[in-house]
Amino acid sequence: MAEAVTAQAARGAIGDSEFDRDTAVVRREPGVHDIDLSAGWTIAGAVNGGYLLAVLGRALADTLPHSDPFTVSAHYLTASRPGPAVIRTDVVRTGRTLSTGQASLFQYDDEGHEVERIRVLASYGDLDALPDDIRTSAEPPAIPPLDRCFDAQDGPAPVSGSSAIVERLMLRLDPATLGWALGSPSGKGEMRAWFGLADGRDTDPLALLLAVDALPPTAFELGLSGWVPTVELTVHVRSRPAPGPLRVSITTRNLAGGYLEEDAEVWDSADRLVAQSRQLARVRLS
Amino acid sequence: MAEAVTAQAARGAIGDSEFDRDTAVVRREPGVHDIDLSAGWTIAGAVNGGYLLAVLGRALADTLPHSDPFTVSAHYLTASRPGPAVIRTDVVRTGRTLSTGQASLFQYDDEGHEVERIRVLASYGDLDALPDDIRTSAEPPAIPPLDRCFDAQDGPAPVSGSSAIVERLMLRLDPATLGWALGSPSGKGEMRAWFGLADGRDTDPLALLLAVDALPPTAFELGLSGWVPTVELTVHVRSRPAPGPLRVSITTRNLAGGYLEEDAEVWDSADRLVAQSRQLARVRLS
Repeated sequence: MAEAVTAQAARGAIGDSEFDRDTAVVRREPGVHDIDLSAGWTIAGAVNGGYLLAVLGRALADTLPHSDPFTVSAHYLTASRPGPAVIRTDVVRTGRTLSTGQASLFQYDDEGHEVERIRVLASYGDLDALPDDIRTSAEPPAIPPLDRCFDAQDGPAPVSGSSAIVERLMLRLDPATLGWALGSPSGKGEMRAWFGLADGRDTDPLALLLAVDALPPTAFELGLSGWVPTVELTVHVRSRPAPGPLRVSITTRNLAGGYLEEDAEVWDSADRLVAQSRQLARVRLS
Repeated sequence: MAEAVTAQAARGAIGDSEFDRDTAVVRREPGVHDIDLSAGWTIAGAVNGGYLLAVLGRALADTLPHSDPFTVSAHYLTASRPGPAVIRTDVVRTGRTLSTGQASLFQYDDEGHEVERIRVLASYGDLDALPDDIRTSAEPPAIPPLDRCFDAQDGPAPVSGSSAIVERLMLRLDPATLGWALGSPSGKGEMRAWFGLADGRDTDPLALLLAVDALPPTAFELGLSGWVPTVELTVHVRSRPAPGPLRVSITTRNLAGGYLEEDAEVWDSADRLVAQSRQLARVRLS
């Protein structure tokens, strides 16, 4: 009994977890927030794009009259590094059910000048105020049970550089999309995984911003290697996720001219499609 | 022979057509463009969202060092009306292969104050500089030949109000997605059509911005009626379209909580997937 209580207390809780602490922004003045970007969410040395979205998402939630991101469009400008950053937000429009804002994250060059890393436009609302009506025709992804999926960490590292983020995520890949880690990519532009936070913190709309950009690139299963930088990523959050691990399915159908799209779907434990995203990314054709 | 020459001259040409004249922006000063939004591109009295994208796209092309939209993310704030508008653009970042800009379109309220209609973030590049490599796994939509598709104008108007845009588009709907016009929607979130400009002007990247938001809403085939306002729309332009009519396929998989997504694919006459878009729109559930 005492052990069970301790285990429960050790689990991350929404609002009191590493993810919450590492995305916390400090309001310096209206429209200006400071943050020290954590080295804990880096992949191959660069700050993960989904973590950045969550950071900007919190700054916007602190700026707009609505608290939940409904649609966030991000254009990635330069690679972010762990360390100090400033976020400048702007209220574009406020309405009864939706409000729209803009946010930019800046870091500093060697001479102390601000360099913009990422700019987003976002429309926020109240997920809990939406009607219950669901007429979704989409089906949850076919993915084996969690205990039959694999941790990509167990294979050889496909990208050099430290990837601290893998320690903070519970990511279990569908064996059918794990060929790249074993040297035999499937040739299909698909990646599927179970997703959660490693400390057991349940997911919320903010964690969905992280989930849509947390899997290995589909490009790996297409036989490409190396960095696949995001140019633009837009995510729609459609529902507050139920507790428990999420299923994330990513598909690429159009690899051409050195670019590809990644379409992500995120499903919760109640079989609800809770988020959709699409990104445009650059690839090195080889 | 004389007749053939006359017919050729009467066709719209890229740069010299109604679409080009109606999207032309006049630079007042750096970063500020004026336009009189044409009543010719209205649907149910409101200015079409794709026409607005094309207008903003031209202002950005006149602002950024690159001329082709690669990815444009638009958040729609208030409904635009025909008449004067001002566009304010901002260069966010310029790079060798991509540059990023922001644009807002404003109109005026009764007291002459500016009201923002739409704000976009966009990354531009040079489509002609991309490598030829294509590994697309997507298949062109199954749509009957153009002469076996139908003009939605021939059916009863599903939305009241003037819809001048239909006279300016060559839009021929797949009979399989035309049930709504005949009073028996299919129940599937699909809409497919052949698309072109009515005056025969060939399509270009700017016209692709129009094409992704030109079909009747998929909501009609889901049995819903009335206005489906766009909250956010992001389009990726992946290739300069070949001459000839385009095929546009739109799919909705997740209608829930009063919102739906519309995923569009645009294919050219050379069977190339030239654009992809996704929008989040509001529906009135009935």
